[in-house]
Amino acid sequence: MLLCDIGNTTYHFYDGNSSYKEDVKLFDPSSIKKKVFYICVNKSVKERLSLLENWVDLSLHVEMSRYYKTMGIDRIMACEAIEDGVVVDAGSAITVDIVKSGNFEGGFIYAGVRAMSECYKNISPALEYSFNFELDLDKMPKNSRDAISYGYLGLLYKEVNSYGMKVYLSGGDAKQFSKLFMNSHVDELLLFKGMKNIMKKANLC
Amino acid sequence: MLLCDIGNTTYHFYDGNSSYKEDVKLFDPSSIKKKVFYICVNKSVKERLSLLENWVDLSLHVEMSRYYKTMGIDRIMACEAIEDGVVVDAGSAITVDIVKSGNFEGGFIYAGVRAMSECYKNISPALEYSFNFELDLDKMPKNSRDAISYGYLGLLYKEVNSYGMKVYLSGGDAKQFSKLFMNSHVDELLLFKGMKNIMKKANLC
Repeated sequence: MLLCDIGNTTYHFYDGNSSYKEDVKLFDPSSIKKKVFYICVNKSVKERLSLLENWVDLSLHVEMSRYYKTMGIDRIMACEAIEDGVVVDAGSAITVDIVKSGNFEGGFIYAGVRAMSECYKNISPALEYSFNFELDLDKMPKNSRDAISYGYLGLLYKEVNSYGMKVYLSGGDAKQFSKLFMNSHVDELLLFKGMKNIMKKANLC
Repeated sequence: MLLCDIGNTTYHFYDGNSSYKEDVKLFDPSSIKKKVFYICVNKSVKERLSLLENWVDLSLHVEMSRYYKTMGIDRIMACEAIEDGVVVDAGSAITVDIVKSGNFEGGFIYAGVRAMSECYKNISPALEYSFNFELDLDKMPKNSRDAISYGYLGLLYKEVNSYGMKVYLSGGDAKQFSKLFMNSHVDELLLFKGMKNIMKKANLC
């Protein structure tokens, strides 16, 4: 049995011990004969997988009334992984979701590091700086790099911190953000934990 | 006598009564014979104006030790306009600056509305929504449009509001942001007020 989280560019597999990635363009899903429980945000891959009997779409087993219709299945799985806390999933977008006593309480979508760097640069070349993840948030900035870092990172930090809850970091930029959220819990397998919980609820394992 | 705030695309004039704009590409500054006190963020225009005797660069009269080296002259002028408060200058970028007892206390740079819309859209077409400026910030969002609006507008609102100071809105998107900052003071001539204050300090008027 395998778990798989499929994004726009990669298949991210987890076999219970280790995780590995395959390129969406190169990988042939029919090459796997084992049962694969998956979530997928990539429409064309999803269509292809629906024809393969051993690939089971876990999104069909989610109690959707607990979330909202256009909410990404990756966000939902991260929420399913925890009982209480804030999930900060830092990828191309950063999603921030609150879970209290196992219930999704709402969340928001922020731009990811790469997208935001591009955004500042596109406004003006004078705003092209790398973000300072070790910024002192107790002082209002008096230099350009910190002024930009505060605008992007400081506001996110303050918002997330204001909930007074445990912070779970996942996604490709999780390690970078752990410099900002110093008492957070980095868990790159968070989505897979959520997937396992859904499987248990649905008696799939 | 005229005041002029020159950006990357326009000359913004103020004659003491009304303000009007001219296109940077089309306008010939030597066509004006009156004295013009200006600030300019456009390098090539600045070089051209330095050859015209009746155009006076006000940035040369600013006490720069009160600010920082790479700070935009437009931000500085907005700060010079007020004694106490937060200036939110909402243009292609949004600059937020704190002034206490006439002193600049620091500030940050956020993305402007257009840049941020583009940014979300570039991350994924699924994130292409217009921002909801009438968002209820007391609830965590449970739909995509509000999740994005909260990420962009909610975090800015909460930060600015946390200072507990009077909010001055300027820039092209000031009116739109006045829906968010309901008790703010919209002043499209704020920069010109700052320029006048600099002129008084430097005995130029």
